[in-house]
Amino acid sequence: MSFLYFFDLLGTIVFAISGVILAGKMRMDPFGVFVLATTTAIGGGTVRDAILGATPVFWVIDPTYLYVIIATCIIFMMFVKLISPLNEAVKINKFILPVLDAIGLAVFVGIGVNKALIYGSGALVAIVMGIITGVGGGILRDVLAREIPMILQKEVYATACLAGASIHIVFYNLGFGTNASMLMGMFVTLLIRLTAIAYNLKLPTFTIK
Amino acid sequence: MSFLYFFDLLGTIVFAISGVILAGKMRMDPFGVFVLATTTAIGGGTVRDAILGATPVFWVIDPTYLYVIIATCIIFMMFVKLISPLNEAVKINKFILPVLDAIGLAVFVGIGVNKALIYGSGALVAIVMGIITGVGGGILRDVLAREIPMILQKEVYATACLAGASIHIVFYNLGFGTNASMLMGMFVTLLIRLTAIAYNLKLPTFTIK
Amino acid sequence: MSFLYFFDLLGTIVFAISGVILAGKMRMDPFGVFVLATTTAIGGGTVRDAILGATPVFWVIDPTYLYVIIATCIIFMMFVKLISPLNEAVKINKFILPVLDAIGLAVFVGIGVNKALIYGSGALVAIVMGIITGVGGGILRDVLAREIPMILQKEVYATACLAGASIHIVFYNLGFGTNASMLMGMFVTLLIRLTAIAYNLKLPTFTIK
Repeated sequence: MSFLYFFDLLGTIVFAISGVILAGKMRMDPFGVFVLATTTAIGGGTVRDAILGATPVFWVIDPTYLYVIIATCIIFMMFVKLISPLNEAVKINKFILPVLDAIGLAVFVGIGVNKALIYGSGALVAIVMGIITGVGGGILRDVLAREIPMILQKEVYATACLAGASIHIVFYNLGFGTNASMLMGMFVTLLIRLTAIAYNLKLPTFTIK
Repeated sequence: MSFLYFFDLLGTIVFAISGVILAGKMRMDPFGVFVLATTTAIGGGTVRDAILGATPVFWVIDPTYLYVIIATCIIFMMFVKLISPLNEAVKINKFILPVLDAIGLAVFVGIGVNKALIYGSGALVAIVMGIITGVGGGILRDVLAREIPMILQKEVYATACLAGASIHIVFYNLGFGTNASMLMGMFVTLLIRLTAIAYNLKLPTFTIK
Repeated sequence: MSFLYFFDLLGTIVFAISGVILAGKMRMDPFGVFVLATTTAIGGGTVRDAILGATPVFWVIDPTYLYVIIATCIIFMMFVKLISPLNEAVKINKFILPVLDAIGLAVFVGIGVNKALIYGSGALVAIVMGIITGVGGGILRDVLAREIPMILQKEVYATACLAGASIHIVFYNLGFGTNASMLMGMFVTLLIRLTAIAYNLKLPTFTIK
């Protein structure tokens, strides 16, 4: 298993967990939980593939993603009673999950940019594909839960995707290899998100009265 | 006209009606009614086809679905004044519609599984395609109407899809014919939904505070 | 640059601005603004292309649309402080924007119908594709902003699309050229929208209690 595939599945798990948690807050039944977890974990990549015409989409070709999501849901629902007191102790919600989410985001953006480049897209389209892959699932999750997608408002989220995807493209066009460029991009996305989380950074909002 | 096509159009009509009713509750104009009815009736299959790469999607190839939806909207809007007192008398909303919806759901799940198998999908992907076909339109309807999709919360809805799609696959892999397997799956989805409606069954919800 | 392409980019700009304004009202950060503007401006055409199987979708093939959207966002955010007092003076919100929106709508509907005809669709499917292209972006915008899509409720919006697309098809089938038919359709959509704006026309709503 390549390092990229490993991180891709890790990102899938983390995003699925964020769907499970929101489903739990909305008191969904177990299969509502699966629907929300699946949408969050593979929604962005699905939209990307449909736009690129890379169909059937990635998880139809490799259902490993679905198995990973199902296992994540089952394990999480089984152990949530253990997690709750653990959460009190170590602040999973406030600390571990955002960090895992940042890792998942960085990986998804890198994979999205990479796939667009493979399909022959230019720089700007590849950046947009990276952003769609990174934030698409979370946006769909929030829309289903009838929340305004926090990604559109929250501290430096789309910005981190944009910066990472841009660095990815710059290094790629400078002639660095596919993996090296992707790693650089992922590193930048991750670094910006972690910094934003650590210092609670926000961009100035654009406001019209 | 094959029996499958007949039930497919029946499901289309039923799902369109559920869109019309929600549009009426939201006081939409007549063409808003068409948009919501169409989204509900063909939304799930459209998402399925886009994911499978079965494009142009089914209703572009066979516009009969669109004609059926338009006729349903017009007839329903014309006769709604007759339906209202009828509803008082026989509880269409509480009884007939849920039963028709269960039939539509069962048919759509079966068609979705079947199409995925035709496109060479494995068991898990085919089950997911069945669920997407069955619940996709209703989820889009509820999102447009700014409601939390009841499918994610309601009694044994996605569960019925999952069970029916799984039975469909099991019989198919046991060597039963395409139609026989599909009928078995549809029967199971329908039976579970009708039982859930009759006894107001609910799964225990998964709750995180 | 053909006249059609010019109006297509004009429609893109107008729809992007409507996304920027809503983002400003929701106090999004600058990259949330880009996401909402982009979704509004190219969402309808993207859904159309995914349904038709015209992938990769139009803006992947011609990223000019993305550059135009980015420029629109930057310019609008830079000059919004100039626009606010201007707005007080000349009622941009109440007058200029709806008129531009009507132009964008008319163009998008015409382009959607045209593309469906190029892909060999029949009359009804082409009309539906025109409507999807015209209203899809605005519906996605409103869903992201957690509003009930006003398009489904508002004065004669989808109706204008339907009428324009139908006229487009009628002239096309009568043997008029592609551009002439499209212009007629666009003119009708525009005329109906402008009339509805000027006289605040509404269709009777369809209401179920």
